[in-house]
Amino acid sequence: MYLCGIDGGGSKTLCLIADEKGNIIGLGKAGPSNISEVGLDGLIRTIVQSIKSALRGDLKRLDFLCVSLAGVGGRNRWDTVYDLLKKCDLAIKLTLVPDIYAVLYSATLNGNGIVVISGTGSIVAGIINGKLRHRAGGWGYLVDDEGSAFHIGREAIRRALRIYDGRDRGDTRLVNVILNHFGVNDLNDLVDLIALGRIKVKDIASLAPHIIDISNDNLTAREIVKNACKELVKGVIAVYEKMNMDLPIILGGSLLLKSKRFRDLFIDMLKRKVPSVQIIVPKFEPVVGALIMAYLQAGINISSGQLMINLEEQIAKEYRNLYISGELHE
Amino acid sequence: MYLCGIDGGGSKTLCLIADEKGNIIGLGKAGPSNISEVGLDGLIRTIVQSIKSALRGDLKRLDFLCVSLAGVGGRNRWDTVYDLLKKCDLAIKLTLVPDIYAVLYSATLNGNGIVVISGTGSIVAGIINGKLRHRAGGWGYLVDDEGSAFHIGREAIRRALRIYDGRDRGDTRLVNVILNHFGVNDLNDLVDLIALGRIKVKDIASLAPHIIDISNDNLTAREIVKNACKELVKGVIAVYEKMNMDLPIILGGSLLLKSKRFRDLFIDMLKRKVPSVQIIVPKFEPVVGALIMAYLQAGINISSGQLMINLEEQIAKEYRNLYISGELHE
Repeated sequence: MYLCGIDGGGSKTLCLIADEKGNIIGLGKAGPSNISEVGLDGLIRTIVQSIKSALRGDLKRLDFLCVSLAGVGGRNRWDTVYDLLKKCDLAIKLTLVPDIYAVLYSATLNGNGIVVISGTGSIVAGIINGKLRHRAGGWGYLVDDEGSAFHIGREAIRRALRIYDGRDRGDTRLVNVILNHFGVNDLNDLVDLIALGRIKVKDIASLAPHIIDISNDNLTAREIVKNACKELVKGVIAVYEKMNMDLPIILGGSLLLKSKRFRDLFIDMLKRKVPSVQIIVPKFEPVVGALIMAYLQAGINISSGQLMINLEEQIAKEYRNLYISGELHE
Repeated sequence: MYLCGIDGGGSKTLCLIADEKGNIIGLGKAGPSNISEVGLDGLIRTIVQSIKSALRGDLKRLDFLCVSLAGVGGRNRWDTVYDLLKKCDLAIKLTLVPDIYAVLYSATLNGNGIVVISGTGSIVAGIINGKLRHRAGGWGYLVDDEGSAFHIGREAIRRALRIYDGRDRGDTRLVNVILNHFGVNDLNDLVDLIALGRIKVKDIASLAPHIIDISNDNLTAREIVKNACKELVKGVIAVYEKMNMDLPIILGGSLLLKSKRFRDLFIDMLKRKVPSVQIIVPKFEPVVGALIMAYLQAGINISSGQLMINLEEQIAKEYRNLYISGELHE
């Protein structure tokens, strides 16, 4: 039996295929699968590519496929993407879920928690028994996504432009970091490339780690990063208060998982508001959570027996990159 | 001789064709020509359509063509659009300029002034003898465009989402205005349509007049509108100080021209900072400014003789919509 989990985000798409005993058959990789950026056709192409990549070039019909995507929270988008995927006939049983679920199941098998993601985009979601109860943010880069890498990158460019054209005063080192990152000579060229669509949302998001890097010495960068954390905390508090029960906070997204400085700042701000809060860094990449959901769909009990042991052993041996980066467990 | 001016903006494209004596041959209209939204192919199609529309379905090779576009301030974009237009061979002599010039020449023939545009996008530009000296803003909707209709529409949606998911408290009437405008039942559906690209930048901008309408009674709307004006004023002051000479402020864009409330607020805020400032509302739509630039390119003297008289007479008689809306001259 072929069970498959796919995790598609703003910068890359991972695909993990295993058998019913927890033996990994393959791990595949493809480009971004953000609908707003690659379009619906691009999304389907990316997903098919990721499966082919996991099967070393083949495309076999799967038994259980769970696709986890950023940006399918809304009914219209879920329906549209589900129908398109269904038409591709990639699997006997297809499940499509928003990315928050893959993060949840990469951290806990019981389906309870408040997931906070800060990657290219951002969202906070309170989930009980695998069902979304309350959310904050995650409405997309055009109108929201505060506390995300895109938010930080965009704010940095916005502030740099304001300093450049005289609307604000500020430290011009910020401008240099931006020019270096994008390999352009001046901000005019940068804006040009953005307008022509050659610098996309994910590229603007890729600036965020550099802004976090200089946030110790650079006042403008510090303000941007602190504000992003504050917005994430605001979202967590909004959901936490509505949930009306103690749930662990599960971290997801590249900024919270891969940037120790950003994560520490976020945890520090959150603990000042809710000192007793339990914070979980997932053991695995979200794609493992998506695979676990495929097992749940198949009615296979993963919390007992050999299956999880097999998966963990193989990840430890051959697919170490599916552990959340070691840097986290300091 | 066929002289032609085209003015392409975020929501529509106008094309005005006249002969060398100032007799109008035709006025054409087509959809938006914002590159970020319609793409390069879409832009070229729109421009060709607008010429055909002015010539009642024909496409004749023009003598002098001046195309004025929002979003061709940067070198890359200017080069790319110019090369594509050149290949279409629409005219013997082609000129391509950013929209600020069409606004400038729709108000004054001497080519001196500080143009401030707030339409779908926004920009402030200080121009002397038809050459741009300093600018503020106008860097595109993704990273800037503060004080524009898109900025106001996006802020309204952003605030409504924050109230909706519990991150902020606020007046929910704002939410109702948004839902009514877009004809959706809840904000989830709205965000869905934005993510699927069915609600675009210009549609978000089209929300702005409604937010301005309720800004007298609604605290959140008032904050958004006042902040947009403040940002525009900030841009004007930044350019004004750099220009180091007294220049008139020339208003452009639908918000400043068609919304008396927005314009009054802007003028009031600006006069508090620079009491002596001279503010000009252009007599004509920017497309007339683009046509005037085509005459200048042809070396035809428009400030003396019968030409301007002919143009004005025909506009008064048959093309009254090329005057800036009467509402302005209260």
